[in-house]
Amino acid sequence: MTLAEEYLQIRKYSEQVCEPLQTEDYVVQPVVDVSPPKWHLGHTTWFFETFILKPFSVNYQVYNNDYNFVFNSYYETVGNRVIRTDRGNLSRPSVNEIYQYRAYVDEAMVSFLSTTLNDEVKELLILGFNHEQQHQELLLTDIKYILGNNPLFPVYAKDKKEVLASENESGWIDIPGGIYQIGYEGTGFSFDNELNRHQVYLHDFSISKTLVSNAEFLAFIHAGGYENFNYWHAEGWDWVKSNHIISPMYWHLIDGEWFNYTLGGLLPIAPNAAVSHISYYEAYAYASWKGMRLPTEFEWEVAAKNFNWGERWEWTESAYLPYPGFSKAPGAIGEYNGKFMVNQKVLRGASVATPQNHSRITYRNFFHPHLRWQYTGIRLVK
Amino acid sequence: MTLAEEYLQIRKYSEQVCEPLQTEDYVVQPVVDVSPPKWHLGHTTWFFETFILKPFSVNYQVYNNDYNFVFNSYYETVGNRVIRTDRGNLSRPSVNEIYQYRAYVDEAMVSFLSTTLNDEVKELLILGFNHEQQHQELLLTDIKYILGNNPLFPVYAKDKKEVLASENESGWIDIPGGIYQIGYEGTGFSFDNELNRHQVYLHDFSISKTLVSNAEFLAFIHAGGYENFNYWHAEGWDWVKSNHIISPMYWHLIDGEWFNYTLGGLLPIAPNAAVSHISYYEAYAYASWKGMRLPTEFEWEVAAKNFNWGERWEWTESAYLPYPGFSKAPGAIGEYNGKFMVNQKVLRGASVATPQNHSRITYRNFFHPHLRWQYTGIRLVK
Amino acid sequence: MTLAEEYLQIRKYSEQVCEPLQTEDYVVQPVVDVSPPKWHLGHTTWFFETFILKPFSVNYQVYNNDYNFVFNSYYETVGNRVIRTDRGNLSRPSVNEIYQYRAYVDEAMVSFLSTTLNDEVKELLILGFNHEQQHQELLLTDIKYILGNNPLFPVYAKDKKEVLASENESGWIDIPGGIYQIGYEGTGFSFDNELNRHQVYLHDFSISKTLVSNAEFLAFIHAGGYENFNYWHAEGWDWVKSNHIISPMYWHLIDGEWFNYTLGGLLPIAPNAAVSHISYYEAYAYASWKGMRLPTEFEWEVAAKNFNWGERWEWTESAYLPYPGFSKAPGAIGEYNGKFMVNQKVLRGASVATPQNHSRITYRNFFHPHLRWQYTGIRLVK
Amino acid sequence: MTLAEEYLQIRKYSEQVCEPLQTEDYVVQPVVDVSPPKWHLGHTTWFFETFILKPFSVNYQVYNNDYNFVFNSYYETVGNRVIRTDRGNLSRPSVNEIYQYRAYVDEAMVSFLSTTLNDEVKELLILGFNHEQQHQELLLTDIKYILGNNPLFPVYAKDKKEVLASENESGWIDIPGGIYQIGYEGTGFSFDNELNRHQVYLHDFSISKTLVSNAEFLAFIHAGGYENFNYWHAEGWDWVKSNHIISPMYWHLIDGEWFNYTLGGLLPIAPNAAVSHISYYEAYAYASWKGMRLPTEFEWEVAAKNFNWGERWEWTESAYLPYPGFSKAPGAIGEYNGKFMVNQKVLRGASVATPQNHSRITYRNFFHPHLRWQYTGIRLVK
Repeated sequence: MTLAEEYLQIRKYSEQVCEPLQTEDYVVQPVVDVSPPKWHLGHTTWFFETFILKPFSVNYQVYNNDYNFVFNSYYETVGNRVIRTDRGNLSRPSVNEIYQYRAYVDEAMVSFLSTTLNDEVKELLILGFNHEQQHQELLLTDIKYILGNNPLFPVYAKDKKEVLASENESGWIDIPGGIYQIGYEGTGFSFDNELNRHQVYLHDFSISKTLVSNAEFLAFIHAGGYENFNYWHAEGWDWVKSNHIISPMYWHLIDGEWFNYTLGGLLPIAPNAAVSHISYYEAYAYASWKGMRLPTEFEWEVAAKNFNWGERWEWTESAYLPYPGFSKAPGAIGEYNGKFMVNQKVLRGASVATPQNHSRITYRNFFHPHLRWQYTGIRLVK
Repeated sequence: MTLAEEYLQIRKYSEQVCEPLQTEDYVVQPVVDVSPPKWHLGHTTWFFETFILKPFSVNYQVYNNDYNFVFNSYYETVGNRVIRTDRGNLSRPSVNEIYQYRAYVDEAMVSFLSTTLNDEVKELLILGFNHEQQHQELLLTDIKYILGNNPLFPVYAKDKKEVLASENESGWIDIPGGIYQIGYEGTGFSFDNELNRHQVYLHDFSISKTLVSNAEFLAFIHAGGYENFNYWHAEGWDWVKSNHIISPMYWHLIDGEWFNYTLGGLLPIAPNAAVSHISYYEAYAYASWKGMRLPTEFEWEVAAKNFNWGERWEWTESAYLPYPGFSKAPGAIGEYNGKFMVNQKVLRGASVATPQNHSRITYRNFFHPHLRWQYTGIRLVK
Repeated sequence: MTLAEEYLQIRKYSEQVCEPLQTEDYVVQPVVDVSPPKWHLGHTTWFFETFILKPFSVNYQVYNNDYNFVFNSYYETVGNRVIRTDRGNLSRPSVNEIYQYRAYVDEAMVSFLSTTLNDEVKELLILGFNHEQQHQELLLTDIKYILGNNPLFPVYAKDKKEVLASENESGWIDIPGGIYQIGYEGTGFSFDNELNRHQVYLHDFSISKTLVSNAEFLAFIHAGGYENFNYWHAEGWDWVKSNHIISPMYWHLIDGEWFNYTLGGLLPIAPNAAVSHISYYEAYAYASWKGMRLPTEFEWEVAAKNFNWGERWEWTESAYLPYPGFSKAPGAIGEYNGKFMVNQKVLRGASVATPQNHSRITYRNFFHPHLRWQYTGIRLVK
Repeated sequence: MTLAEEYLQIRKYSEQVCEPLQTEDYVVQPVVDVSPPKWHLGHTTWFFETFILKPFSVNYQVYNNDYNFVFNSYYETVGNRVIRTDRGNLSRPSVNEIYQYRAYVDEAMVSFLSTTLNDEVKELLILGFNHEQQHQELLLTDIKYILGNNPLFPVYAKDKKEVLASENESGWIDIPGGIYQIGYEGTGFSFDNELNRHQVYLHDFSISKTLVSNAEFLAFIHAGGYENFNYWHAEGWDWVKSNHIISPMYWHLIDGEWFNYTLGGLLPIAPNAAVSHISYYEAYAYASWKGMRLPTEFEWEVAAKNFNWGERWEWTESAYLPYPGFSKAPGAIGEYNGKFMVNQKVLRGASVATPQNHSRITYRNFFHPHLRWQYTGIRLVK
């Protein structure tokens, strides 16, 4: 596959994710962490325009100078960004205009990709691919949030899978203590936060082969898990009380039975499916109630070759911190990861929202501990 | 004109106001006081369905029971309402679905209006007409807000007038003190807040024939009006400081020249046009700076036959309070006005956003003193 | 009595109000509207120093220049004020230092008052007396708040009266419609907001001779008054819901019986005493439930010679607005009243916290509609 | 020294810290993280009463049952606590009453300590000593905040040292990579968060022998460090912008010269003293500007025997997380540390506010990254 073909395939997938949407669904931003789908489509396009076409493609004409203002994200070096909470206030550019913007940039990109590319460009291109794939994951979970918080519970796609077919074998894996290598190694792509590969000392631990299921989590609810502060961090407990949390996100108790909103609509809870849409606080409290704990990201990385993963992003006990020797790239690209390395938790694995070829055993995702709109899950360690 | 014809004409006008919109413009709610256009279209339809078709039209089938939840406004007696700040989070029902809802209710209404109507129904119908006209006014000003707060400054309609053609004669009108009759009298429609007609004693006053112009207001700005607390109420001054107010809403200082956003796009300030989009605090401060004051709503009502009005809603010094003998209707209709009679200021007149036949000399509009998104204006008294 | 004697008598009374306090009680500010007692003692002193001694007393030495910063209130013209919410953060100046400041200024004042005073000074002096008396009222109600919101419910003074001995005769007074004179007239002191005396047209009304009692208000509670939105303004209802209001302030339901905190400690509700510590919203809702209304301030002023008053500040339906011809004095003194004339309600009468000689039939007090820490009450009109 | 003697010595030191205070200084709570000194005095007393006297001392009479409500901290298992933000609203119990409470409990404790104590009691006693010492540190820094945020800048004690006499030798220490033992080992007291002792793999690093000085930090300010987002975490940058941070806490630029508030009053910045009262965000930004980084807590623990420490709490790059095998004690005591292990940063060392005998190389302090009122400092690693 040529780079142009790969480019087009990735770009097309973003649009496929949006295919079931009504125009209106592209526009709203119900909470600060959820971006409007049309913003994702514009922002990923702006990334290629700003970091590849503008600096490297001779005679490239910027599509619309105002778009830099509208579609910039957190890249402080590239000018004023639209404050994140304002994204949902912008009815323009319209969805059609954004698709036209995509077409314009795609045409310019394909033409540019047919020229001889230097290594710097190639690197930026691969980063752009991965950047768009990250947004594809957010796109789907943001769409779920937009539809799942609408009182009409609209269906995204009747047959959209939120669990993987693969059956997990239950039981525990014992990992002996010792020095292990952690971090990305190889010639493929990795984010800067997966580097450098380095040594970590681990103590003996046993890790579950399976994720916690809905049925198991329901037992926690029935045992009063949400009413007993003993299982919770102090700030987790405040979060439970302030937000009146009594179940995972998207769960609804209707006439005594638990339902949850899925991309296929409002359905009864599937007992054997992995529990999802829980915060780190809930993952921790569940583990605490079981007398166990969550894995560190290092334990997870060492053990992961021994179990199936990729259905849920798995909360770890690790804070999101730089690896030894981490250094960020100069300029705007350097803002990618390093500046978020405080007050967030690492998640490992991948989820049903992750695009193909966008997961690996060293991948580090990260979110604030209260967030639940990703397909998050729980794996226990003892 | 039959009632059915009148009904259809009013209903059609709401849709005409929305004609220049993109689908996306119907959806967003940039601030709590501005509702998404699609909500206005649905809510006014829900009003006819809930208060006329459901109780009076035999065999009427409710279009969609969930819509009561989505399109209810402040009517506590008719079930849970969508909290106002949430309206902008709802991508569904879609714009198309809402137009279908309108068509369905319109058909049922036209059919129902061909039957014999009793007086109660007729009264509710006229209330429904006036209710929809009130929303038409909000619809246009909400649209202006949505477009005017977009960094792309989209044009609503190139030739949309925001000032009236009629030339006002300048000068002052002297009104002698004495007892005057205030409030609606006649056989046409009025809101309950215009009743009962009653006597008020006024002292001598002189009132300006014209509204304050942009050029005059600019003189206030140049004189440091926004920096001198002496002209302001204490809470007006807090509002200026907290919100960094330095000019009317929609004004932008670009390279030393003042522009303002209009429905025709971003244009240089028209010096002779009446200043607009100012809060009560600003109206008061301006009057204070001039050594004058705003009229009371009673002074305005007595004097209004002597000057042109209808271009700007005019802030008065009067608080929004019940007239002597005011009583509210039983049931949901009674929630219309009375429950807002605290902490708001009366505005008199009408504005360029007011539909035809929806203004009269006794009409009482009311807003909180900090609000600016209506076509508000200033008329002085000395 | 000489001016100096009058000065000392008023000054002494402020300190008498504080006599039962512990040092710690002088310091705290539990909510923004309640000032620390030591701040009242300092601020009233600063008033005499700033507006009389500094401009008029030759060779007067300012006690401490920093105190202008600490004890200034809302007087924007006299320099930066300590933001009201910060008052409770200041442990210094200490209570002792403030008493020393009072002694210093009192000595300077007494000496100055023995000289020949011009009319301007005399006017400012009388204003200073009235200013201190206003703060004496606040001082007592602020102290009640500080003690009454302490979980230990400390007693201020065992025998401190919160109701007046005078028995009110029940029944209604009928006042015929017509033109009445409103506002202060005479040669004594009045605040600028009581001027000018002017004509108001009133319609026929009947006003109760007595205030609503605790027993009557309890009937409102038992009838579900706090749970039925029909009796409330929209924003009153929001206030009830957001703040979980179920009774007047200081009421506590203990083992099924209602108690209230009084300056004499926590006591069972006295059924025949006038209900107090209710917001305007509650006063309005109570009247609404009774099918009656509150008087306007003009009705109150006209009728008041026919009933006993002075025990509770009585909420009126009137917004706090300038009288015809109102103009504020130039300079800092002019900031006294005019700048608060928006979004507040007028209260008439006086309360058990009002110092002797500080009440008259034309006196206009004013507070925001949600406030309850004053001795507020309800008188009905039908 | 007997346990009773040790008890009395520690108890006495808390009161010595408060000796320079006025009564008023004991009462206020300017921000949520700073507790009123009188609360510290009561809470530490309540600790001994609740966890030792009540369960173990036969016939002990609780001093005042209401005090459990007032002086409880975060111990959810021991009943309702006074919400932290409310502590500064409570004028009672008075300072005298709290000293009486201390005397009462001290007498009961001394009597109880003369009896035969079992191991459980001894352990709780030692915990109580260390708990009181932790509060002594907070007591001094809270007092500094209370006085240092008063516009009068009161002096705590003219000669109170905020820097240590010991001169640090400059230069760098090289530590070779390898497996190191981390955590407390021995028979003395340690907090549960210092356990278990375990192995950690460290890579080669060099650590500074000295803390960053005021002069060095001033160079960061002059180089525009507070205006360049590149040096900051994203949320650190938001913190700088929202709070208008331009220097360490307590620094004031007066007529072009930098002063800082110290316990001895407002003084010119001492260039050679270690910079203090900086947030983690500022520590990180400074390191980033130097092209270096902060140590992890493990690096610090390994290297600390090679440099002087104890003057400033030193921010580390480590998040506050449980050590391998960490388990919390059952009951209220178990709430001590574990429940805070999310979203906080570890600080190592000790500060000039730390009581004697209350520091050790394995001690883990922790605060949220934006907090600055402790004597925090910066040590660099490269």
